[in-house]
Amino acid sequence: MKKEEILEILDEALEYAREYIPLGEVATYIPELGKADPNELGICLHTKDGHKFSVGDTDVRFTIQSISKLITLAVALERLGREKVFSKVGMEPSGEAFNSLIDLDLGINKPKNPMINSGAITITSLILEHVTFEELLEFARELCMDPDMDINMDVYNSEMNNISRNKSIAYLLESKGIIETDVEKTLKLYTKMCSIEVTAESLANFGLILASDGVNPITEKRLLSTGVVHVLKTIMLMCGMYDASGEFAVKVGIPTKSGVAGGLISVVDKLMGIGIYSPPLDKKGNCIVGKPLLERLSRKFELHIFARHKI
Amino acid sequence: MKKEEILEILDEALEYAREYIPLGEVATYIPELGKADPNELGICLHTKDGHKFSVGDTDVRFTIQSISKLITLAVALERLGREKVFSKVGMEPSGEAFNSLIDLDLGINKPKNPMINSGAITITSLILEHVTFEELLEFARELCMDPDMDINMDVYNSEMNNISRNKSIAYLLESKGIIETDVEKTLKLYTKMCSIEVTAESLANFGLILASDGVNPITEKRLLSTGVVHVLKTIMLMCGMYDASGEFAVKVGIPTKSGVAGGLISVVDKLMGIGIYSPPLDKKGNCIVGKPLLERLSRKFELHIFARHKI
Amino acid sequence: MKKEEILEILDEALEYAREYIPLGEVATYIPELGKADPNELGICLHTKDGHKFSVGDTDVRFTIQSISKLITLAVALERLGREKVFSKVGMEPSGEAFNSLIDLDLGINKPKNPMINSGAITITSLILEHVTFEELLEFARELCMDPDMDINMDVYNSEMNNISRNKSIAYLLESKGIIETDVEKTLKLYTKMCSIEVTAESLANFGLILASDGVNPITEKRLLSTGVVHVLKTIMLMCGMYDASGEFAVKVGIPTKSGVAGGLISVVDKLMGIGIYSPPLDKKGNCIVGKPLLERLSRKFELHIFARHKI
Amino acid sequence: MKKEEILEILDEALEYAREYIPLGEVATYIPELGKADPNELGICLHTKDGHKFSVGDTDVRFTIQSISKLITLAVALERLGREKVFSKVGMEPSGEAFNSLIDLDLGINKPKNPMINSGAITITSLILEHVTFEELLEFARELCMDPDMDINMDVYNSEMNNISRNKSIAYLLESKGIIETDVEKTLKLYTKMCSIEVTAESLANFGLILASDGVNPITEKRLLSTGVVHVLKTIMLMCGMYDASGEFAVKVGIPTKSGVAGGLISVVDKLMGIGIYSPPLDKKGNCIVGKPLLERLSRKFELHIFARHKI
Repeated sequence: MKKEEILEILDEALEYAREYIPLGEVATYIPELGKADPNELGICLHTKDGHKFSVGDTDVRFTIQSISKLITLAVALERLGREKVFSKVGMEPSGEAFNSLIDLDLGINKPKNPMINSGAITITSLILEHVTFEELLEFARELCMDPDMDINMDVYNSEMNNISRNKSIAYLLESKGIIETDVEKTLKLYTKMCSIEVTAESLANFGLILASDGVNPITEKRLLSTGVVHVLKTIMLMCGMYDASGEFAVKVGIPTKSGVAGGLISVVDKLMGIGIYSPPLDKKGNCIVGKPLLERLSRKFELHIFARHKI
Repeated sequence: MKKEEILEILDEALEYAREYIPLGEVATYIPELGKADPNELGICLHTKDGHKFSVGDTDVRFTIQSISKLITLAVALERLGREKVFSKVGMEPSGEAFNSLIDLDLGINKPKNPMINSGAITITSLILEHVTFEELLEFARELCMDPDMDINMDVYNSEMNNISRNKSIAYLLESKGIIETDVEKTLKLYTKMCSIEVTAESLANFGLILASDGVNPITEKRLLSTGVVHVLKTIMLMCGMYDASGEFAVKVGIPTKSGVAGGLISVVDKLMGIGIYSPPLDKKGNCIVGKPLLERLSRKFELHIFARHKI
Repeated sequence: MKKEEILEILDEALEYAREYIPLGEVATYIPELGKADPNELGICLHTKDGHKFSVGDTDVRFTIQSISKLITLAVALERLGREKVFSKVGMEPSGEAFNSLIDLDLGINKPKNPMINSGAITITSLILEHVTFEELLEFARELCMDPDMDINMDVYNSEMNNISRNKSIAYLLESKGIIETDVEKTLKLYTKMCSIEVTAESLANFGLILASDGVNPITEKRLLSTGVVHVLKTIMLMCGMYDASGEFAVKVGIPTKSGVAGGLISVVDKLMGIGIYSPPLDKKGNCIVGKPLLERLSRKFELHIFARHKI
Repeated sequence: MKKEEILEILDEALEYAREYIPLGEVATYIPELGKADPNELGICLHTKDGHKFSVGDTDVRFTIQSISKLITLAVALERLGREKVFSKVGMEPSGEAFNSLIDLDLGINKPKNPMINSGAITITSLILEHVTFEELLEFARELCMDPDMDINMDVYNSEMNNISRNKSIAYLLESKGIIETDVEKTLKLYTKMCSIEVTAESLANFGLILASDGVNPITEKRLLSTGVVHVLKTIMLMCGMYDASGEFAVKVGIPTKSGVAGGLISVVDKLMGIGIYSPPLDKKGNCIVGKPLLERLSRKFELHIFARHKI
C-alpha cells in the first residue's frame, strides 16, 4: 500500500470516528482532567520498518493514566518474575468496572488482574521498594522514545485530592495482607505514574516496542524481555479495555490499553504500534472514538489477530 | 419471684452457657483484645424497681466496642434529629457481615444501618463537629452510671494500628460523598468511642435507662428523649446482632447489642437492663454465650417481646 | 377511648393515607392483579375484647398472596417442628428484594427467611406431602373466621402463566438439594395458596388470632400453639415488609405482613388484629398506604412495640 | 521439523501432562459422565497442509458437552447475523463460574457471553425455530469430518434428569424476556447438542476448519463464513475456559474451548486444529491436563498468538 493511500484511509477513519466525540464525556472526577479540549483528536502509526503516519493532534501532551499500568507491570515482571507477580494478582478479566471492590470483599484474595485499579495498586506496592519514581520515569521515556516526558504536577495534585476510592481499595488490600508497603507511599507512586505526560506519538512508539517483542527497532536496544512482552500483549487483549475488552477483541482484535485522559495504545504484533489521543470517554471509561476508529482500521488493513494473513 | 430463686436461675443459666465458651474464639484481629481471659463470664440484671442481680465477673473492665454505636447514634439523633440522621444511614438489617463493603460498592448510596461499621462511621462523621470525645465520654458515664469509665489507650492504639478495613470503608464513604469530614479524624473518634472501658454492670445500667425510655430511674433525670430510645430499641432488635439478628429475635426476643470485646447489652422494655461479659465470639462476631444464656433467661422469666404478659 | 373517637381517628388516618395512593402502582406482572381498582381502600381493627372497627372497602375480596406465607409457615411449624423447618430456611432479614436469587447462587445453602419467595417455596415443599390444598384452605378459613374464602381461579391461572421467576428459584433450590419434592407440584400448591381470596376483615380476624397467641377469642378454640405464634410475630416484625422491614419497625413497630394484591395484616400483640386493603404498591412491593396509615395509628393509639404502656 | 521429532515432543508432553490426572476429578454431577475412565488420554494435531499426529486414546467416543456451544453459536451467527445474536448475548468474559446466575439477577439484561450456560441457552433459543436437531447434528458431522457422530442417549437422559440448575437459568432468562421460546424444548435441544459423541480426532478436524477460516482444507468446501470464524476464535480465546480464560491465554495463548466430559478443541490460527480427550477436570470445570499439555506444546512449537513467527 502506498503512503498516500494509507494516509487517506487514516484521514477518512478519523473523520468517521470524530462523529462519536459528542457521545462521550471528558473525565471530570479529577477536576484537572476536565479541562481537556474534547475536540482534540490525533492518531499515530509507527511501523517496524520505520514508517510513521501521523494525523491530527499527535503532539498534544496529556497524562498517561492507566496506560502506566503496563509500565509498572512490565517492571514488576522483569524485576520479580511472573511467579511472584501472579501470586499477588490474577490474570482474569474481571467482569466488573475498573474501580470495583466487590470481588475483593467477597473473599477473593487477589485482584482479578493488573489492569484494574486494585491490581495495579498491588503491582505498584510490589515494586515500591525496588525502584524509584525517577527510575520509572526514565524507563518510560525510553519505552516511549520521548526524552521530554515528565510528570504533570497539576494533574498529580488534583488526583491526590480525589483519591478516596483508590484509598478505599488500597486499605482493603492492606487489610487482606495483599499489600504490605505503606499505603500512602504506594498511592503516591501509583498516582505519579498516572500523571506522566505523553503524546499520541509517544504511545505509538511504546506500542512499536511491544510489537517488536521488547526491542527498540531503531536503536536495536532490548528494553523488555520477550516473555514479559508476550504477557503484556495478552493481558492488553484480555483486560485492556476493562469490561468492554471482549467486544473490543471481537470487533477490533488488536491488543489495546486505554487511559482515562483519552489515550489509547495499540499493538499490531510484529507490525506496528498505534497511539491515539481523544479525551471524551464512553461509559466504561474508554476513549469513545477508540472502538469505531480502530475497528475501521482493523478492517481496512486486516489487523485483527485472526484476520491477518502475515505477521 | 424471690431474689434467691432468681439468683438460682441465673447461676444455673450461667453454668449452662459456660459450656459454649470453648466453641468461641476471642477476637484477635486487634492484638490487644486477644489478651482477654476467655473464661471470664459475668452477668448483671438491673430492674426498674431497683433490684440488682450480679453473678460472676461483673466488675471486670473491657472495651465497649460496637456497643458504643448506640451512644453515638443516640447523640446524633438528639442533636440532629431523625430526618437528618436517616438521610445518611438506612434502618434495614443488612444481610451482610458487620464489615461488608459490597452493598456500598453496588451503588447503594447509604450504609444499610447504624449498627454496621459503615453506618456507625457515617454517624460518627455526622456528630464530629458538634461534640468532642470528652463530652461523649462524659455522657457515656452518665448513661452507664459509671463515673470511672475511661478510654483504654492500649486498645485504642492497637485498633489504630489495625484499622485498614475501617479506613477502606471510610474512604469509600468519602468517595461517595456520604461522609464529608476528615476521614482520619472521624476514624479516631470512632475508635476512641470503641475503646471506652465498661463492665457488665455499666452495661446493665445503660440497658436499664433504655428500658426506662431514657430516664435514670434512680435520679429520675432524663438522659435521652423517649422517641430516640424507641428508635434505639427497635434498631437493637432488628440489627443489634449483625446478620444473626433474626435468629436472635426469634429465640431470645430481647433487643440486644454486642461488642467484639465480649460485651452484650440487653433491654427488657419497661422492666430491666442486662449486661453480660464473656470474650469468646461466634462466627458472626457476637459473644458466643449470649444466645444460649439469654434464650434460657428469656424462657424462664418470659422476657421475649411476644411472650410477655406484663410490661 | 370512646368508639366514636376511635372511628374518627380511623377516618382521619384513612384520608391522610389516601393521598399516597397516586404514588403507588397496582402490581401488573400478574395481569389479573392489574385489574384491581387502585382507589379501593379499607381497614378493619378487631380487638381481643370483641370490638370491631371497619372503615372503607373492608368486604372487597382480593387474593391473599404473600400473606399466605404465614399460614404455610404456621402449618409447617406445627407439623414438623421448629428444628426441621429452620434446618431448611433461615430466620434472617435478607437485605435483598423478595424475589432475589443472589444469596442462593453465592453458595449460601438455605433461603434467608420464610417470607421471601425462595423461603416460602421451600416451606411449601416441606409440607407438600403432609397436607392437601383443601386442608390448608379449610385451615385458612378458620384462621380468618371466613368460611366463604375460596381460591380465585382467574388469578391462579394468571399467576401460573407468569411463573418463570418462581420456577427459576424453585429449580435452583432443587439443584441445591433444598427442595426434594416435585417442583411443578410444589409451585402449584404455592400459587394456589397465594390465590385464596380474603377481605380486610378476614385479615383483621387472622391478626386477632395471632394477637391472642393462637386462640380464637370468640370461640376460645386454640388454632395455633403459642410458640408457633411467637415465631410468626417475630418473623413478621423482622422480615414481613421485605427489605423495608427495618424502617417499618422503627416507624410503625407493629408486626405486619404484606401481599402483592394490596393486603396487609398487622398484629398488635395481646390487643388486636388489623386488616388493610389497598392495591397500589410502593417500590419494595408493599401496599403504599400501609406505612403512613399504620404509622399514624401507631402514634395515636401508642401501638409501637416499644411505646406501649400496657399489653 | 520432522514427523518423528514432532511425535516425540507429543509423547513427552503427554507423559508430562499425565501426572496431572490424579489432581483432577471426573464430572459426576451427571451420573453417566462419572463412568468415564480417568486414565484415558489422547491428543490429535491436524495441520492445514494435511499432516495428522495422533497419540493415545484418540478414537474413544465421549460427549461434546460445552464444545457444542461453538456449533450453536456458529449456526446462530450464520442464520441470524451478528447484530441479532449480540443483542441477546454479550461478548464479555464473565468473571464468574460457568453456571452463575448472579449477573442476571443483578439486573444485567443479557448473559455475559455465549460460552457460559446462560448465554448458550439463549443462543439455542434463538435458533430453535430455524433449525432441527437433526440438521445441527448433520452440520456437526461435517465440521468434525466424522459421519458416524451421533447422540449418546444414556448421557442425554442422565443430563435431562439433572437439569435443575439449567432450568433455573432458563426460567430466569424467560422471566426477563431474554428467551421467548418454550423453555422445555429449548433445554432439550441444548442438552441434545451437549450429548453428541465426538473423539479427539473429530475435535482436531473441527479445529482445523476453524484454523482454515471455515473451509475444509481437504474438500475445499466452505462450511462457515470467515467473519463468523473470526468471532468464534476470538470468543474461544476470551471466554473458552470459563473464568480461567485469562491465565490460559497468558500461558498457552491458543483459542480453546473445553467440555465437561473431558474434551478440548484448540485452534492454532492458519496452522492446525488440536483435539484432546482426558476426563478429569480441574476446579473451574476444564480438563485438568489441558493447560500443562498445551502450555508445553505452545512453548515447544511456538504456538502462542504473540510468540508465533509465521502463520
